[in-house]
Amino acid sequence: MNATPRWLNPDEKAAWDSFIRMQETLIGRLSRRVQADSGMSASDFIVLANLTETGGGRMRFLDLAKLVEWEKSRMSHQVTRMAKRGLVTREECPDDGRGAFIVATPAGYKAIEEAAPKNVEHVRRLLIDALTPEELSTLGQISKRVLEHMEEQPE
Amino acid sequence: MNATPRWLNPDEKAAWDSFIRMQETLIGRLSRRVQADSGMSASDFIVLANLTETGGGRMRFLDLAKLVEWEKSRMSHQVTRMAKRGLVTREECPDDGRGAFIVATPAGYKAIEEAAPKNVEHVRRLLIDALTPEELSTLGQISKRVLEHMEEQPE
Repeated sequence: MNATPRWLNPDEKAAWDSFIRMQETLIGRLSRRVQADSGMSASDFIVLANLTETGGGRMRFLDLAKLVEWEKSRMSHQVTRMAKRGLVTREECPDDGRGAFIVATPAGYKAIEEAAPKNVEHVRRLLIDALTPEELSTLGQISKRVLEHMEEQPE
Repeated sequence: MNATPRWLNPDEKAAWDSFIRMQETLIGRLSRRVQADSGMSASDFIVLANLTETGGGRMRFLDLAKLVEWEKSRMSHQVTRMAKRGLVTREECPDDGRGAFIVATPAGYKAIEEAAPKNVEHVRRLLIDALTPEELSTLGQISKRVLEHMEEQPE
């Protein structure tokens, strides 16, 4: 990339700085709260929430990695850690070549069922209560626009 | 927390899901790009960018931790890793009790000066180009509102 970098102009930079700082602060606080409230890491929470809510408690490894937008290696390490602690199990499918299922255990269900109500209170307190319903809706629409745009972009 | 959880209503949930998925995807992609383009982790990039841009290349450890919204332990591990690789040094100040300075080395400056132009191109490509200037400005304003709200909230 030898061309002059297209640095952000002052308006773009102000918006980007506010956004990046907001998401870092919000995600940092929510992560520390999950840890303090339930002893789970944010990654444990994300995996269990997606696995139980979207996947009905049982999903192909690759589908789960795609759902939470993680690389395979990250998901693989995470699943190993969670399996050791009894939150999920890995069901191998040697026959069909499409990879293992990840399954939430009863202990995994219990953990997410205890953590989720506390998490939603923090999401309300830190984000939802900060905005009017219209502002929240606008944030959702802008996020969706960016997501759709990113899907068309190379990695 | 024994009261009935105030689960998100469908509009709130749609907005929250879009936002969380967008920021996870965006931050994940930018992190992988920094790694691929420059061999730095996202954390290396964040520390060097803030240290050189806001701190003039030299900041108190605690001020730097506060600036990037990290806990002391996370910053401490990160600085140790970066010092080993020669990107920063730690200048102890035994006299004033206010803790060490973290200083960007010439190698640290070189690393961030090479990485930053590439990073800004990815920020443009993935986020800024997805939105009109008005939408970007709205995202910035909403982010600022949430940040100000969080500052008044307990951790």
